[in-house]
Amino acid sequence: MVLASALQWIIPIAGLTAVIFAGYLARDVLRRDTGTDAMRDVASTIYEGAVAFIRRQYTTIAILAVAAAVVIGGVIYLVETRDVADVPDLAGAPIAIMTAIAFLVGAAASMASGIIGMFISVKSNVRTAAAARRSLVEAVQVAMRGGAVSGFLVVSLSLLGVWGIFTAYSTFVGGVGVREAPFLIVGFGFGASFVALFAQLGGGIYTKAADVGADLVGKVEAGIPEDDPRNAGVIADLVGDNVGDCAGRGADLFESTAAENIGAMILGVGAFLIAQAAGWPNPEAWIFFPLVVRGFGLLATIVAIFFVRGREDEDPMNMLNRGYWVTTLLSVVGLLITTNVMMNTGAVVGANGIPAWIWFFLAGVVGLATSVAFVYITQYYTAGSWRPVKEIAEASRTGPATNIISGVAVGFETTAVTAITIAVALFASHWLGQQAHLVNTAGHDVGGIFGTAVATMGMLMTTAYILAMDTFGPITDNAGGIAQFSRSEESAREITDRLDAVGNTTKALTKGYAIASASLAAFLLFSAYIDKVNLIQTNRGAPLLTSVNLADVSVFIAALIGAMLVYFFSSLAIRAVGTTAQAIIVEVRRQFREMPGIMDYTQRPDYARVVDITTRAALRQMVLPGVVAVATPIAVGILLGHEAVAGLLMVGTIAGVLLATVLNNGGGAWDNAKKYIEAGHLLDADGKVLGKGTMAHAAAVVGDTVGDPFKDTAGPSLHVLVKLLATITLVLAPLFIR
Amino acid sequence: MVLASALQWIIPIAGLTAVIFAGYLARDVLRRDTGTDAMRDVASTIYEGAVAFIRRQYTTIAILAVAAAVVIGGVIYLVETRDVADVPDLAGAPIAIMTAIAFLVGAAASMASGIIGMFISVKSNVRTAAAARRSLVEAVQVAMRGGAVSGFLVVSLSLLGVWGIFTAYSTFVGGVGVREAPFLIVGFGFGASFVALFAQLGGGIYTKAADVGADLVGKVEAGIPEDDPRNAGVIADLVGDNVGDCAGRGADLFESTAAENIGAMILGVGAFLIAQAAGWPNPEAWIFFPLVVRGFGLLATIVAIFFVRGREDEDPMNMLNRGYWVTTLLSVVGLLITTNVMMNTGAVVGANGIPAWIWFFLAGVVGLATSVAFVYITQYYTAGSWRPVKEIAEASRTGPATNIISGVAVGFETTAVTAITIAVALFASHWLGQQAHLVNTAGHDVGGIFGTAVATMGMLMTTAYILAMDTFGPITDNAGGIAQFSRSEESAREITDRLDAVGNTTKALTKGYAIASASLAAFLLFSAYIDKVNLIQTNRGAPLLTSVNLADVSVFIAALIGAMLVYFFSSLAIRAVGTTAQAIIVEVRRQFREMPGIMDYTQRPDYARVVDITTRAALRQMVLPGVVAVATPIAVGILLGHEAVAGLLMVGTIAGVLLATVLNNGGGAWDNAKKYIEAGHLLDADGKVLGKGTMAHAAAVVGDTVGDPFKDTAGPSLHVLVKLLATITLVLAPLFIR
Repeated sequence: MVLASALQWIIPIAGLTAVIFAGYLARDVLRRDTGTDAMRDVASTIYEGAVAFIRRQYTTIAILAVAAAVVIGGVIYLVETRDVADVPDLAGAPIAIMTAIAFLVGAAASMASGIIGMFISVKSNVRTAAAARRSLVEAVQVAMRGGAVSGFLVVSLSLLGVWGIFTAYSTFVGGVGVREAPFLIVGFGFGASFVALFAQLGGGIYTKAADVGADLVGKVEAGIPEDDPRNAGVIADLVGDNVGDCAGRGADLFESTAAENIGAMILGVGAFLIAQAAGWPNPEAWIFFPLVVRGFGLLATIVAIFFVRGREDEDPMNMLNRGYWVTTLLSVVGLLITTNVMMNTGAVVGANGIPAWIWFFLAGVVGLATSVAFVYITQYYTAGSWRPVKEIAEASRTGPATNIISGVAVGFETTAVTAITIAVALFASHWLGQQAHLVNTAGHDVGGIFGTAVATMGMLMTTAYILAMDTFGPITDNAGGIAQFSRSEESAREITDRLDAVGNTTKALTKGYAIASASLAAFLLFSAYIDKVNLIQTNRGAPLLTSVNLADVSVFIAALIGAMLVYFFSSLAIRAVGTTAQAIIVEVRRQFREMPGIMDYTQRPDYARVVDITTRAALRQMVLPGVVAVATPIAVGILLGHEAVAGLLMVGTIAGVLLATVLNNGGGAWDNAKKYIEAGHLLDADGKVLGKGTMAHAAAVVGDTVGDPFKDTAGPSLHVLVKLLATITLVLAPLFIR
Repeated sequence: MVLASALQWIIPIAGLTAVIFAGYLARDVLRRDTGTDAMRDVASTIYEGAVAFIRRQYTTIAILAVAAAVVIGGVIYLVETRDVADVPDLAGAPIAIMTAIAFLVGAAASMASGIIGMFISVKSNVRTAAAARRSLVEAVQVAMRGGAVSGFLVVSLSLLGVWGIFTAYSTFVGGVGVREAPFLIVGFGFGASFVALFAQLGGGIYTKAADVGADLVGKVEAGIPEDDPRNAGVIADLVGDNVGDCAGRGADLFESTAAENIGAMILGVGAFLIAQAAGWPNPEAWIFFPLVVRGFGLLATIVAIFFVRGREDEDPMNMLNRGYWVTTLLSVVGLLITTNVMMNTGAVVGANGIPAWIWFFLAGVVGLATSVAFVYITQYYTAGSWRPVKEIAEASRTGPATNIISGVAVGFETTAVTAITIAVALFASHWLGQQAHLVNTAGHDVGGIFGTAVATMGMLMTTAYILAMDTFGPITDNAGGIAQFSRSEESAREITDRLDAVGNTTKALTKGYAIASASLAAFLLFSAYIDKVNLIQTNRGAPLLTSVNLADVSVFIAALIGAMLVYFFSSLAIRAVGTTAQAIIVEVRRQFREMPGIMDYTQRPDYARVVDITTRAALRQMVLPGVVAVATPIAVGILLGHEAVAGLLMVGTIAGVLLATVLNNGGGAWDNAKKYIEAGHLLDADGKVLGKGTMAHAAAVVGDTVGDPFKDTAGPSLHVLVKLLATITLVLAPLFIR
């Protein structure tokens, strides 16, 4: 059918439209009112700090990425001989160069989307603060549009990048068609995850070290309020929101969308071969399918942005939810069109005489439903009105120890509903896929796995919107900080406080979403790894990898090490926050001591020096966990072989997803238990309010501080680690084959 | 060879000798001086509380066990038809009755060893406190001998129980020989783990709820010292040491030794068949081997007890270590004799012309070396003089939040060396086993797996000694409490304080040991499960289970649920401590309020009421986590089948071992960071000591309290959970086969 070929043009059209739309949003945000002089002053200080950090961080990352590209190219040149190459004709130098180029393009695109998104978000902060002086709805719109710039850029650059390099390789390189190209572009995903790992680690360490350090030395030691201008660490804290939450999460989701698209395309090759053998029309549609779905998701999000509106007295969360539901419903329509047009199985029909495309459409709907489920699960566990947060707040009455014990119990508990939801989604999408009766020439049913891939694609359709909501978080957080710092009107601070609370929820939602998509995608990427290994084994006439056998001692050992890695990596990330925070505390203390005018506002603290110290310390601290994350799977793969490393990948993913859930949700619940107490909801035995300044509040602050590095450093870094394991093993598979 | 048959008599001889020796030790302890009237008074109060709890707890457990035996018998009767029975001739009622009997015998033996051990340990407390008034060495000996009663009874009852039921079934039941019997006695292991689960959960919840509750309401709220007689919760706290640490850990290790012996015997059947086919002498020696090794371990420990002696000014840890090294070295000799005599491979030699028995002897030495390695690893992470504990103490200077963050980082970090040590031990023992060239008739090398089994057996040779050291902990802890409570002489309290610190270390060591043996054993029990499934599959002519394929969606889902289960179970256990502690706090507060004479010693607090409330609450709270632990593997097995449940078992074990490591070592490090500060080792910037009463100490107390339910409730309960998963799947395998 011609329609299926035509639909492929949705990919560049949607991608470019989204880039243009991001430009329109950026222009809309940038031309808005920037508020009072005091606001502009603090905003420009934040801007300088953020730019200084990002410049140094991305310089470091760029150097690491170029070095990594050379090493990867070299290793592939040496290892990927004719014997073990995906495309034997390209063995040696050609495949090494193509992988290195894909790696660098992926790394560069990830860096670009991170930098631009961060730039706009820093500019949106002050404009949100200024808008809050006039109107809640306007403030919501400014923050959401600023966030959407990141969202659109990340998703469209990932889409255009994968599509571009795929098209380039399949069109211009001899011997490479649509069948081979997916295997050759895995370097793009690896490059993206490599950058994401260091972006998330460096930003995550920076933001939480600054937060913890500034709070401990300001609120606890000196007894001045949060975001008070007398605290020399407060600008570093505000800078941290931008470099950690914005740039870090942007890189994380860039990498998700890239890696999972490539994985789905590799699985699409299996369907392509079936379609070719059976003579179905448009076999290559199966390979392009993931990208087309993503394109529809972008278009749905563009429409949805215009639905973010409401009344002044409305809960801002409702406005954001409205847009989310529009995105979801339009995505269902897009999915229906795509599966109907592109999944033509000729005369073959699925179970019960129902066409295959309907089964796959339903699998995609399972993915979208999973995304919705996680939005509500995360709200239940981390929002103030439900049992878990209340339980932690109640436990705060007997001090910090019971607050911590209760928070850990809640964090552990959240794994149950998370795991069960993922299990149901995987099982359902796999079952639906099996009903499509997609059987390859060897007689294996590949529909089940492809069903899980379609579910992942369905889930990821809303990524741009989710990411916009996520970036809304740090923008409003900063806007609140700017309002407080510039001693803005009470009414404006009330509005930014409301937005900040909503931002906390949206940030938590994104993490739940990222975790759920990582788990669905794990299975997909794992299957892609097996496909790649078997492509190589077929080429060399070696026995296929049909099973990753946990009863094999090497696989078991690798699985044990994979599960250990997520703890050890988290330990390094958490300790890095502690070490960096200590450096900040020492410096702020010094300024209080040596500059006595700070406390009565006659002397301006040296903010820049704290920013500089934080920057150096965070960048130094990000290297060790990053190197451990990259080196462990490679070492295990070389020592124990390609089957064992698959065990490391799978069990490491399971362990990483669960530990990230514990850290993210535990941290979110602690944060909101503190807010619950501050809002005056906790009562003592006589019905008196236990609010700010009580022992219970102090206990809740301890929990909140403990949760900070959990939910904003270690947890999000684990998302990246999990996907990095998948892309490393995909790219370096030839190195592990014995 | 006649010698190999003769050596089998070591099993009953060593078992009975150990029982008699335990009787001698008990008599020796019981006839010692019981101190002052005040001491006897508090000791008898503790005794009453402990007996009351144990009576109610074991009544509940007995009811649950009988109900479980009926259910298991019924299920096996219905499910284990001729088609899926291990021994087809016994299908239906006979096998159901035999399994139910084995279950009940295992449960009863476990309960007996727990009750007797606890009884002696409660009696040893006051005698240790009395001895401390005279001599350090005498106090060490009383506590160690009291602990050794538990150690010997647990190991010998487990050995005699397994041997007895094995001999009974293989001798008196028609159609059952040594080849079939190992499969028929797995019910014994299940019964033992069933009891251990509830004993450890109930005791663990009791002990930490009492500890946390009494500390919070006494030390924090009322400002009176630990173990002060005015605190109505303090007797419950002292009772808790006995019912949690003694009875709980005893049940845990009873179950380990039973389950792992049976698993090793099942693997021995593989070697037995090879030996039979090849006509080697004494094929049944391969099946008896694990029990003989255990017998030698008991004899080694009896000798070692006499080496626990030293000078008055010596570090008590040295005296205990001396005995440990004697046990280890004698165990090496025992292992050498056993492997040499029992592992006769006729004309077949292993790699490089070295006899098979030498390879297996070396595998056993790997196990003993692993045990030694864990003793030192645990010391590094939880003893006061090394980096991790110091790091936590330093972090306490900036308050409870940084103390907690630092402790979590240390806890996570400990997984690295744990996992690597286990990986090396598994790899080495598997490799050594492979060198023995033990090839079965189907051409499969079974030596590798058998090597890991021999390593596990080697490691477990020192169990009785380790358990004696472990029980030394609560005995000295209680002795300290009694000395404090009865306001004993300063010199006696100094000695009990020193012993208490050593006891903390030995308790931590045991947990490291239990975890390491659980990991080695996991592989062994997992292989036993596969052997059992394949025995059934062979009988019914169905395809064998040759692989547990992680790439299969059902296996992946089951693995995810297995890893989730350990978090969810821990969450329930930790929450149970919090709930129970709240009940204690409310009651002690009420007594302070309504009985004003307590504070000036004119009124005696109602200790019994607190004990009673704690007992009821702990028993109520142990049911839910216990039921979740038992029900989850059964549900997954029924829904997803026998291959998937193997995935749950393996990945659940990996996740459980690592999470238990985090909880045990994190908790231990927090505890010792507090002690480090109390000992005056922490200095501020000006070199002044930051000791008791400082902010830093208060922060460290928070960490210690958080660590309590981690290291003494959730962590140890996870050890049991991991082994319960293995015994459940072993017993109910026929239920899961499709």
